[in-house]
Amino acid sequence: MNIQTYLAKQSKKIDKALDGYLPKKDATPSILHEAMRYAVFSGGKRIRPILVLAACGIVGGDERKGMPAACAVELIHNYSLIHDDMPCMDDDNFRRGQPTCHKKFNEETALLAGDALLTLAFQILSQTTPSRPAKALERQLVTASLIANAVGSRGMVGGQAVDLECQTTQIEFPTIEYINTHKTGALIAVCLKAGAYLGGGSKGEIQALYGYGKYIGLLFQIVDDIMDREGYAKMVGVPEARKEAEGLLLKAKKVLGRFGPKAFVLSRIADFVLTRKY
Amino acid sequence: MNIQTYLAKQSKKIDKALDGYLPKKDATPSILHEAMRYAVFSGGKRIRPILVLAACGIVGGDERKGMPAACAVELIHNYSLIHDDMPCMDDDNFRRGQPTCHKKFNEETALLAGDALLTLAFQILSQTTPSRPAKALERQLVTASLIANAVGSRGMVGGQAVDLECQTTQIEFPTIEYINTHKTGALIAVCLKAGAYLGGGSKGEIQALYGYGKYIGLLFQIVDDIMDREGYAKMVGVPEARKEAEGLLLKAKKVLGRFGPKAFVLSRIADFVLTRKY
Repeated sequence: MNIQTYLAKQSKKIDKALDGYLPKKDATPSILHEAMRYAVFSGGKRIRPILVLAACGIVGGDERKGMPAACAVELIHNYSLIHDDMPCMDDDNFRRGQPTCHKKFNEETALLAGDALLTLAFQILSQTTPSRPAKALERQLVTASLIANAVGSRGMVGGQAVDLECQTTQIEFPTIEYINTHKTGALIAVCLKAGAYLGGGSKGEIQALYGYGKYIGLLFQIVDDIMDREGYAKMVGVPEARKEAEGLLLKAKKVLGRFGPKAFVLSRIADFVLTRKY
Repeated sequence: MNIQTYLAKQSKKIDKALDGYLPKKDATPSILHEAMRYAVFSGGKRIRPILVLAACGIVGGDERKGMPAACAVELIHNYSLIHDDMPCMDDDNFRRGQPTCHKKFNEETALLAGDALLTLAFQILSQTTPSRPAKALERQLVTASLIANAVGSRGMVGGQAVDLECQTTQIEFPTIEYINTHKTGALIAVCLKAGAYLGGGSKGEIQALYGYGKYIGLLFQIVDDIMDREGYAKMVGVPEARKEAEGLLLKAKKVLGRFGPKAFVLSRIADFVLTRKY
């Protein structure tokens, strides 16, 4: 299958699941639910949830087992974008060509919509039914724990905090590395880890896919930096940043070697991360 | 034991547990962790976690089983205060006589500290160890789910959204009721429900304590309204609001009847909610 067709098909499946999880627009309080839906259905490429499902599938698991976690990471990604765009943070008026959430609604609604999306992610991750076997319950708790740890003050939010701190101070290389591995990298890497874990992967498989996730997470951020002439690209220069990006792509693909032809999708996603345009 | 002594003892125990869960101040990113600790250790009375532990104990459970959930609800309460105080929300400069988080640090750090505290709550609620029995795992997931649902867009955050909406429109009685039961009530009520559930209470016991929680949650908000001459008190007048508060106290105590002398603590906490001063 063509990779574009695959991504479109997966993205449609994920949108349908997200639509089921998100409260309806007219449910009280309607302005809040409208804002949550506006942010989530604004043209995102669903790369993170697609990675969860792909990792689940590549280790032989039923992709459907990965869907709640896939939706949770996408909601977390969108909450972080809403808060990032706010006036006290990056102060952005547009995202993907549309007014940002606080511009379309107002600041307080955007703040609360972000809070509610983060909470909804954990509502989904903790949803259960009676009398399930211990193995399934443990798997669900571990998944929630992995994701929570990846996006907390020692993960994604920590990366954002350091990024903001650095906009006023002289930045050094270890700090750039911290930002890159935390702000964008932690969430992307955990998508692979959680997906492989939920799919029943072996320890070795989970580690390999987590490694791949770390490489493409870093790749993601460096490509962003190249496009914006910021961070890493600003420090080392664009040609050097491009070289680093190419190197990360190779490393990511090398890790996939053990999965043989099954790795086709993840390999093409890595290419896509390098060549994507906004 | 004197109720004040009891509250002080419990509060100390909870502070110790919170201290263990919160990242150290000097852990990277230190400004974020400092802000999280500043908000959490700023003189709160720990009523919510105390209610979790008391509900756990009254049904015969070991209070220690309720401690992770107790800390989680306190972190959630504090995240909601940080975000509530921000300029785009209530724009408050002081809380409990100290500068609010965004005044002490800055807006972006306050926003992220709130996000990180909410996330930490779910890190705690999902933390697990290998090979636990299905019953314990299920109990933990259900607790996380109860709490997540109580504080999401159909719970606490929903109440805040409606409250903000109403500051610009003519408010009606059902709306006041919605705000009171959601903004403050949902989190307080779930403290009792989760505590009783974690303590191994029967369905009837859990329902009774949940009922008590709903009454004192409402009582909490109405007392706030009386002190601020806002919301419910503004609509019906202070004397009528006082009458309603007294009625809620009686209802809360009536529910406790089935627990006999063991209900002493919860009964005194209800008194405390009515008579507390800031």
